[in-house]
Amino acid sequence: MAVYTSVSDDKLAAFLSDYSLGKARAFKGIAEGVENSNYYLETETGRYILTLFERRADPKDLPYFMAVKQHLAEKAFPCPAPIADREGNVLRELEGRPAVIVSFLDGLSPARPNPAQCRSMGENLALMHAALGDFEQTRPNALGPASWPKLWHGREETAEGLQPGLAALVTEDLAEIGRAKPHSLDLPRGTIHADLFPDNAFFIGDDFSGAIDFYFACTDALAYDLAVCLNAWAFEEGSEFNYSKGAALIAGYESVRALEPAEREFLPLLCRGAALRFFLTRLVDWTDTPADALVKPKNPLDYSARLAFHRKAVSAASYGA
Amino acid sequence: MAVYTSVSDDKLAAFLSDYSLGKARAFKGIAEGVENSNYYLETETGRYILTLFERRADPKDLPYFMAVKQHLAEKAFPCPAPIADREGNVLRELEGRPAVIVSFLDGLSPARPNPAQCRSMGENLALMHAALGDFEQTRPNALGPASWPKLWHGREETAEGLQPGLAALVTEDLAEIGRAKPHSLDLPRGTIHADLFPDNAFFIGDDFSGAIDFYFACTDALAYDLAVCLNAWAFEEGSEFNYSKGAALIAGYESVRALEPAEREFLPLLCRGAALRFFLTRLVDWTDTPADALVKPKNPLDYSARLAFHRKAVSAASYGA
Repeated sequence: MAVYTSVSDDKLAAFLSDYSLGKARAFKGIAEGVENSNYYLETETGRYILTLFERRADPKDLPYFMAVKQHLAEKAFPCPAPIADREGNVLRELEGRPAVIVSFLDGLSPARPNPAQCRSMGENLALMHAALGDFEQTRPNALGPASWPKLWHGREETAEGLQPGLAALVTEDLAEIGRAKPHSLDLPRGTIHADLFPDNAFFIGDDFSGAIDFYFACTDALAYDLAVCLNAWAFEEGSEFNYSKGAALIAGYESVRALEPAEREFLPLLCRGAALRFFLTRLVDWTDTPADALVKPKNPLDYSARLAFHRKAVSAASYGA
Repeated sequence: MAVYTSVSDDKLAAFLSDYSLGKARAFKGIAEGVENSNYYLETETGRYILTLFERRADPKDLPYFMAVKQHLAEKAFPCPAPIADREGNVLRELEGRPAVIVSFLDGLSPARPNPAQCRSMGENLALMHAALGDFEQTRPNALGPASWPKLWHGREETAEGLQPGLAALVTEDLAEIGRAKPHSLDLPRGTIHADLFPDNAFFIGDDFSGAIDFYFACTDALAYDLAVCLNAWAFEEGSEFNYSKGAALIAGYESVRALEPAEREFLPLLCRGAALRFFLTRLVDWTDTPADALVKPKNPLDYSARLAFHRKAVSAASYGA
C-alpha cells in the first residue's frame, strides 16, 4: 500500500481542465491498492479516486477493466465508475502513467468480516455476475490453471524452506487439478472479479456498498469467483475454516442464483484451485520482493493451510452449501 | 509518507462510539505527514482526519500541540481543529497509540509555490502569529540553536563525504551563530509553527486555505518562522533564491505586521540558522535512516546550498524586504 507516483498540483489542475468536474479542492495520496498509485480527489462537483497505473499493469488490459466497471456502473452495481473527460476518453495519461478518474465509493473494508457481511458479499457477488451477464468483451484468466505449473517451476525448494513436506503436496495438488481438466468442465462461465478479497469490498455496517480493484477481472467459471471468496472470506486468521461464514457466503450467492449441480460437485476442486493460485502468486512475491520494497509480501503459508482443508473437503456441503 | 499502524473497522467503530460524529462512511490511510499515521475519515457528520502518533512523537508534547490548534481554531485561523469526544477528551488512544480526530481542511499543497501563493502564505503566517498572540502555553524550541552543535557532533565526515569542504563551512556557521548569541537578541517572540513548508500548507488556487502539522510548534522569535518560510518557499529546486518569491512572502507578512528594525537586521542570521537547522536534521536522517525505511530521507545538500546564499546575504534587502 503506497503512492508510487507524485502528482503536482499544477499537473493535476491541467489534467482536470479536460474534465467537467470543476477544480480540485482536496488531493491526498491514499494507501489503497497494492500495485497502483491512488489519490483521494475532491473537486467542486464531488469526491473521486484518481488512479495512476504503475509498471505491473499491462496497458493493453486497461480498456477491458474500464469497460467492466462502466458496464457494472450502468447496471447500478456499486463499483468505481470511470469518468470520461470532455472528449469521452476514460483512460488518460498523467505523470507518464495511464490514469483514470473514478467515482468515490462509500464504505469500509472489514478487517474480519462477520457472517452477515459474508452473506451480503455472496448476494452481491451473484448480483455482479448477473449484471455482467450481457457483457460481451472477454479476457482469459492470466492466472488460471494453465499458468500454475509455470509459477511453481523452480520454487519447490522455497516451499520446502517454508514448510517441510509442502513441495510434494503442492506437486500433487497440481497433478490432481491437471487430471480434472478444469477447462473441460461444463460450468456456467462469465465475467468474474477473481480477486474479491475483503480489502476489495466496502460495507456500511453489514451491508455491502461496493467492490473495487477489478484488475484481475476475466472470463472464467462463475463458481470459481465464489471459490476465491470462500478462501478469502470464510477462513479465520489462523487459517481455520469458519463454517458459518462459508454457509452465509454460499446462501447469499444462492439467494440470487442457485448453483448448478456441476458447480456444487466441483466446488472443492474450484476452492483448491483458487487456494493454489493465491499460494503460488504469494510464493512468487515472497521470493521476488526486494527487502526494501514499500509493500511487504503476504505469507504463502496462509494458503497452504487452506489447501490442506480443501484436500479433505468431500463436497459442497463441506463449505456449508 | 506512509501508514504505519492499521486500524480495523471494528476498532474504529468502537472508537467513534465515544464521539458525536455518527458512524464511519469511509476510511482510508493517507500518505500525508512523515512521522505519524493519518486516515481520511468520513462519518455521517462530515470529513475528518484521524491521526495516530507513532514512536517519534513525545506523548508529553501532544497536549501542547493540541492546545495550539484549538487556540487557532477558536480564532478562526484555518488548521486541523481537534475534536473532543463526549467527555471532552481530545487526545485518546487507538491501537496502542495516542490518537486524535481533527477537522478536514480543503486545499492542495503546492509542489512549486508561485509568488501569489508566497504572498498569501506570508500574510497568513503573520495572521497565525497574531492569533497566537494571547496563547499562554510555552514550549522551548527543541531544535533551536542550543541543539545544533549536538546534532553536528560526529557528522563532519558524513558532510565531507557529501561535499568536500562542507565540514569547515558548517563549523564556521555554528561558530558565527554562537557568537551572535541568538537567545539574547531582542526580537518579538511568540508561538511559531517552525516547520511551515509548502507540504504543510494548503491552497485553493492562490489563496491559503490552511496549515497542518504543528508538531514542531514552540515558543521562539516570530521572525525565525518567517526565516523558515523563506528557506522553504523562496528557493527553487536547484536551490537558487527566487527574489520575487522572497519579496512576496515578506510583503505578505508585513501587510499584517511590519517587521521591527531588529528583525530586519537579523533576518540574514535567522535565515542562516533556519537553513542550518534543516541541514543538520536532514544530515542526521541521511545517516540514520535504514535503507528499507518507508520514508526516504531528504537530501541535506539542498540546505547547504541555501546556507551558501545566506552567508553572502548582507541585509533583509537581500531577501526582498
